[in-house]
Amino acid sequence: MNVKKPELLYLDHAAATPMDEHVLAAMQPFFQDEFFNPSSPYAPAVQARRAYDDAKHRLAVAIGGKADEVIVTAGATESINLVFAGITGHVVVSAVEHPAVLEAARRHEHTIVPVDAKGSVLSEAVAGAIRPDTVLVSIQLANNELGTIQPLREIATVVKAERQRRAEGGEATPIYLHSDASQGAGQIDIHVARLGVDALTLNAGKMYGPKQVGLLWAASHVTLSPLIVGGGQERGLRSGTENVAGAVGFAVALERASRHAAGEARRLAQLRDTLQRELLAAFPEAVVSGNQKKRLAGHLHISFPGIDAERLVFLLEAKRVLVATGSACAANKNTRSHVLEAIGLSPEAADGSLRITLGRLSNEATSAQALAIIVDMVRFEQQRMKK
Amino acid sequence: MNVKKPELLYLDHAAATPMDEHVLAAMQPFFQDEFFNPSSPYAPAVQARRAYDDAKHRLAVAIGGKADEVIVTAGATESINLVFAGITGHVVVSAVEHPAVLEAARRHEHTIVPVDAKGSVLSEAVAGAIRPDTVLVSIQLANNELGTIQPLREIATVVKAERQRRAEGGEATPIYLHSDASQGAGQIDIHVARLGVDALTLNAGKMYGPKQVGLLWAASHVTLSPLIVGGGQERGLRSGTENVAGAVGFAVALERASRHAAGEARRLAQLRDTLQRELLAAFPEAVVSGNQKKRLAGHLHISFPGIDAERLVFLLEAKRVLVATGSACAANKNTRSHVLEAIGLSPEAADGSLRITLGRLSNEATSAQALAIIVDMVRFEQQRMKK
Repeated sequence: MNVKKPELLYLDHAAATPMDEHVLAAMQPFFQDEFFNPSSPYAPAVQARRAYDDAKHRLAVAIGGKADEVIVTAGATESINLVFAGITGHVVVSAVEHPAVLEAARRHEHTIVPVDAKGSVLSEAVAGAIRPDTVLVSIQLANNELGTIQPLREIATVVKAERQRRAEGGEATPIYLHSDASQGAGQIDIHVARLGVDALTLNAGKMYGPKQVGLLWAASHVTLSPLIVGGGQERGLRSGTENVAGAVGFAVALERASRHAAGEARRLAQLRDTLQRELLAAFPEAVVSGNQKKRLAGHLHISFPGIDAERLVFLLEAKRVLVATGSACAANKNTRSHVLEAIGLSPEAADGSLRITLGRLSNEATSAQALAIIVDMVRFEQQRMKK
Repeated sequence: MNVKKPELLYLDHAAATPMDEHVLAAMQPFFQDEFFNPSSPYAPAVQARRAYDDAKHRLAVAIGGKADEVIVTAGATESINLVFAGITGHVVVSAVEHPAVLEAARRHEHTIVPVDAKGSVLSEAVAGAIRPDTVLVSIQLANNELGTIQPLREIATVVKAERQRRAEGGEATPIYLHSDASQGAGQIDIHVARLGVDALTLNAGKMYGPKQVGLLWAASHVTLSPLIVGGGQERGLRSGTENVAGAVGFAVALERASRHAAGEARRLAQLRDTLQRELLAAFPEAVVSGNQKKRLAGHLHISFPGIDAERLVFLLEAKRVLVATGSACAANKNTRSHVLEAIGLSPEAADGSLRITLGRLSNEATSAQALAIIVDMVRFEQQRMKK
């Protein structure tokens, strides 16, 4: 990555990522030269249409789906709302979903399943929450705060068993598994058949792609209803002139993220593990949250009990280290993170927690620099608290 | 405008516009360097938040509204769907609205008012369609196919009279006037108080701004409900990470469009009037549709009865002239334009009609070249038909 802010030590890749230069280069022609409306009849517009269709095809291939199962949206939140808009019936979600899933679920009859102390959704809990009228189960691929990777394949097995049961009993109610995979793409496998999902949400802005671009993949058997009606674009499921530049950039971002996922995950895990080890060595009382066996490679959620994480974030920022407390959404509203409440973290630990998320802007040198600064600043705060 | 396709004679500005280089320059920093999530707490993110808030302020000022009355969306179709999503009750729309308005209206009890032969909505017709339970009247600023500018101020007077009547009768049902101003910004005044509207939709992609960006302005007394729920951004009315680059680009586009509107309208009207005069001189049987006294300056809808406009568009394209038949949306589906049906244009004339829309890529030289080519190609087709 070539970002012109080398002076910053950016440890908040789960909140936002800079656009990959390959992504930007692929989008650039569509800003000015190839600006045509893909619905216009003349050749330059037909070329824009082809570029769009090609991008959708590439997006689909990257996740193992088909182009006509992909709807390009303005981001993960819209994608999530779209899959929920197609539902009439009961839905099951976990307590640690993104607010978009939780709020969309509240528009339906719903059950929220709890998680264990590591933030993992238990497939038995999902099985127990499914009712005869449950139409949608929506479980994230990985948690944005803790990095915990959810056991989607096990949950998919539960959903398939229920589908089988209904088929055998002659019940017509469908049941789908949707996953919000906003976090994790670029680090773990997101092939839809291997995940076992019927619908998947992706967010380009979290994978070095264009912001305000996302997709909903939904297998052809999933019933969808449009949120946004009009000219009938995207098979009537998302009206409005198609986002040619956005789709083209997203395709490049997703392909690059998928291609380099395994290597990048190894690289980040090494950096993250070193950070974690050194921080725990310096602060034995610190608490690492999340599922340490099933966790996104770049994620480290660590609490320093007694410290005020908001103060710490500002002290770190003064030293050029950018890091998060809780999620961006929750942070916005001065409320305690619903994820940390769900895992039962004590208020004292929750209030002293940092979310460190590594990514392409991270390397050994920046990671070591950031570590030294974090250690200094936590010590500084601990000294201040003792006075 | 500096678009690298000088070889093309682009006469389809109502379908799409290339991004203004000032717009792109303003957006560029937010693609890579200033990529931060505006909800993050550290200073660079707070700067992104400020840039976003500043852009919303500038968007609001450009139309005479307030920043907290503006919701940035992914385009006009979403804006229109959003204003309709807030409605419980009857709606009144015209027969020549964009499909986004017509389809959104179909989700409610609705009345579609006809237009006259020039495509003008008559305020008396609107008055006649309003019922005691009418909550929303949605009439476009100008028609995308004909260029006819609607008498919004007269319609606003009708809506205000109804509001007054209800207030005096102690009726609590509100009534709002919304206008889809996707067409017309950059050529005519779009100050919300002067238009007399309660809500306004704008589309950045039609005014040399970024595509997939729009806004809904709604006065504070208008009740809205979110289409898209989640993290609670945009006062809970449109969740999802804010589109910093898009809002910043849109603000520049709207400011430039507004600043140059009067001069640009004069310039385009002169070019358009010459085109119209010369085409009518060459083809006395041609029919110009739309309201010639109240029409967007760059618009010319002209029919050559007996000609197949789809063939003509392809012949013109081969000569580098890019022009539309009907609207992009309708063209997509091989159906006859609902607008041309609404004005009662004969099928023969409708099928032979071109929509010529001039804009920033137009000048005297390109306009004269295009004219000569159109005359040649229409003659060529007329000869072919005679054989």
